[in-house]
Amino acid sequence: MGNKTALLTLDTLELRARLASGAVSALEVTEACLDRIAARNEAVQAWAWIDPEFARDQARRLDTHRKAGRPLGALHGLPVGVKDVIDTAKLPTENGCALDAGRVPLQDAFVVERLKQAGAVILGKTVTTELAFMQSGKTRNPHNPEHTPGGSSSGSAAAVADLQVPFAIGTQTGGSVIRPASYCGVTGFKPSFGAIPRRGVLMQSPSLDTVGVFARSPLDAALLAEALFGYDPQDSATSPAPLPHLLDVARTDPPVKPLFALIKPPGWADADPQLHAAFAELAEALGDQVFEAELPAAFDQAAALREQINFAEMARCYYRYSRDGMDQLGPRTREAMDKGANILARDYLAALDWRAVFGAAMDEVFERCDAILCPAATGPAPLGLEFTGNAIFNGLWTMLGTPAITIPAFTAENGLPMGLQLVGPCGQDARLLRNAHWFTRWLDDARG
Amino acid sequence: MGNKTALLTLDTLELRARLASGAVSALEVTEACLDRIAARNEAVQAWAWIDPEFARDQARRLDTHRKAGRPLGALHGLPVGVKDVIDTAKLPTENGCALDAGRVPLQDAFVVERLKQAGAVILGKTVTTELAFMQSGKTRNPHNPEHTPGGSSSGSAAAVADLQVPFAIGTQTGGSVIRPASYCGVTGFKPSFGAIPRRGVLMQSPSLDTVGVFARSPLDAALLAEALFGYDPQDSATSPAPLPHLLDVARTDPPVKPLFALIKPPGWADADPQLHAAFAELAEALGDQVFEAELPAAFDQAAALREQINFAEMARCYYRYSRDGMDQLGPRTREAMDKGANILARDYLAALDWRAVFGAAMDEVFERCDAILCPAATGPAPLGLEFTGNAIFNGLWTMLGTPAITIPAFTAENGLPMGLQLVGPCGQDARLLRNAHWFTRWLDDARG
Repeated sequence: MGNKTALLTLDTLELRARLASGAVSALEVTEACLDRIAARNEAVQAWAWIDPEFARDQARRLDTHRKAGRPLGALHGLPVGVKDVIDTAKLPTENGCALDAGRVPLQDAFVVERLKQAGAVILGKTVTTELAFMQSGKTRNPHNPEHTPGGSSSGSAAAVADLQVPFAIGTQTGGSVIRPASYCGVTGFKPSFGAIPRRGVLMQSPSLDTVGVFARSPLDAALLAEALFGYDPQDSATSPAPLPHLLDVARTDPPVKPLFALIKPPGWADADPQLHAAFAELAEALGDQVFEAELPAAFDQAAALREQINFAEMARCYYRYSRDGMDQLGPRTREAMDKGANILARDYLAALDWRAVFGAAMDEVFERCDAILCPAATGPAPLGLEFTGNAIFNGLWTMLGTPAITIPAFTAENGLPMGLQLVGPCGQDARLLRNAHWFTRWLDDARG
Repeated sequence: MGNKTALLTLDTLELRARLASGAVSALEVTEACLDRIAARNEAVQAWAWIDPEFARDQARRLDTHRKAGRPLGALHGLPVGVKDVIDTAKLPTENGCALDAGRVPLQDAFVVERLKQAGAVILGKTVTTELAFMQSGKTRNPHNPEHTPGGSSSGSAAAVADLQVPFAIGTQTGGSVIRPASYCGVTGFKPSFGAIPRRGVLMQSPSLDTVGVFARSPLDAALLAEALFGYDPQDSATSPAPLPHLLDVARTDPPVKPLFALIKPPGWADADPQLHAAFAELAEALGDQVFEAELPAAFDQAAALREQINFAEMARCYYRYSRDGMDQLGPRTREAMDKGANILARDYLAALDWRAVFGAAMDEVFERCDAILCPAATGPAPLGLEFTGNAIFNGLWTMLGTPAITIPAFTAENGLPMGLQLVGPCGQDARLLRNAHWFTRWLDDARG
């Protein structure tokens, strides 16, 4: 790794400090990313669209801005990857879908407006699976190109894991942030439902779709997420509430030693035995800081209910794709849309109502702990690129709208990373990030 | 009419002033209502449940409260009728449904809590059609007992029209406030969707259900509605916004002479020719204060789309009734629930999306006027008690969530009243009430 790319191993917060002081320029950081991408793109293929000159232009303007002594945004000079289901004005946004080839939106998504306001460099668009569902894209797992990076935010996870960009934005409707983050060995943070406005983001399932972030630590994730939280009247899931100070809170020590509830969610028995072993060790190491909480049997239906919501809304939201060229969609997408088109409104509405039932049961767990611990995925990234992996450990939290974060915690025998997932109550994103930050330090200590 | 019942012909605002000053006691007003009901109940049958002693008890306590010099609520001493789909703690709330016979909720609905806080006397529960749909109850039109009072808020409309109570609360999912108010010749006000929290109100269609009020003038409606507006976290349609000063605004003169857009909505051609004539005369009399606005052809689908939303959600919300005894429901209810049970989620979601399309088209009309004028119903109350009337002129406004108010404006050849409907933009309830108040004065002047 050259001098330039060494910049990319820095904590993003440290990199931000250097950018703000002028110790390093936005152009230097951007060039470092571009160099890394040039070297690694053939192997990883994380980018759906990237134009080095476009990135350099932004960096140069930001450097001029800084040199003029003007106030700097919270993300000044930091390159960001943006999942290609998120609209970028005048740049291709093709949604990983042949039917959207050549699509160039006129308006930025809310989150892209925010990135620009904060002084970030839009480095490029990262690969998504087809329409953010399960038909895989071209991206490979940077730890082993024979393995999937996970989906649907495949490029965002892989690019951050491979040091091609300090952080990236993705979306989660089932497990599309947490799962690829776990497979690629980075931090993935899915905030509370409604925390980040989705204007300009491809809608797959408005009751589930959540914008999330990829970074290399919970603090870095807090830095990026804080720039994106907000209210937008065009997204009825958002509300004009005061914004949390994610980074400031995440940096502080928890007031008391955090207590965790270990949950073995539906699907646990079928998970990789390496995970069973890892969690047993983890529980032993945490000692009296963890207790096991059991979920009522009704939770066994959660995955099917979430899928009903997802598929029914997908059949509505992607109706134009089925009308314009169902045959140009991949078989996984087609199958889900066919299923969705046959779901009855009554069953769909009943599935939505289950959220409150599950939420009430989960609130009882949250009352007894600071955060829930559970696996981020059923094991390491599966072999092959066709199947983006099982989201059974993610969908429940997406359905409930609870904030969830994964941090790399374990390594499988084949050398691939496995993530630990922490989940907090709805709206307590800052507290969850603080507990995750605490956990990364505890893991570092435990590893010696 | 005796001395006591003469109290009931007063403006409610005047009655409130006398109650507040002690010129009349809450018990006297309550007795006046009870006397009127005793005389008229056999003919009108507006009440699902009423217990004179229960009403007197409240009135006596309110009088004691006033005599002690304690601060008085905004509705101090004023009797109110409450539609029997609205929960009243420890009082029967049977939803007009055989399956709910003997049902006694433990909690008050939000609006009943508000009534009690404001010092109102809960006079009794008013008749609703079965589950607030189209299977008629026992109530008759006070102007002619051979005619329907309209539905579903049949008892609330009839009781207010018959001077049995100064005002009453109802609900509207299609046209259940505006239509019976028009048929019975009273003011009916359906506020903006989400203005009045629905906690404790029978849910038929959460995307449409709206609590409304019946009174004898727009100002009286403003007085009652203002006590009910609010935010309740259990009703996601509501939001913690500042409350409008409905009564204060409604009392003021519009800053300029109001300009009205006359709309002949889908269904106009099939309406009673007496209405066509009445609106032609009205337009002539209003002169340059009115212009005709045409709706795009797509609005012809609005009634069918609203019905899809209503029936699909009804099939979900009333699922327990279909499970517990579909055969004990009336044929109109059964038919709607059967239709609703077969609606696909995709079509239901598409129907919901049409709201934004229609809303945008309507915003263009609202930009050019102070309020929309249109008929409140297709004619006077139909003959017979079986059919509660056609809601074609109401459903569009319920679907769009716009505030709507009807005031008695015309009289059919058979002596029955016909209402004029005014509609305003979402959230501008106070302004709509002000324009309706202006209109009642203009009508009085025009009549000489």
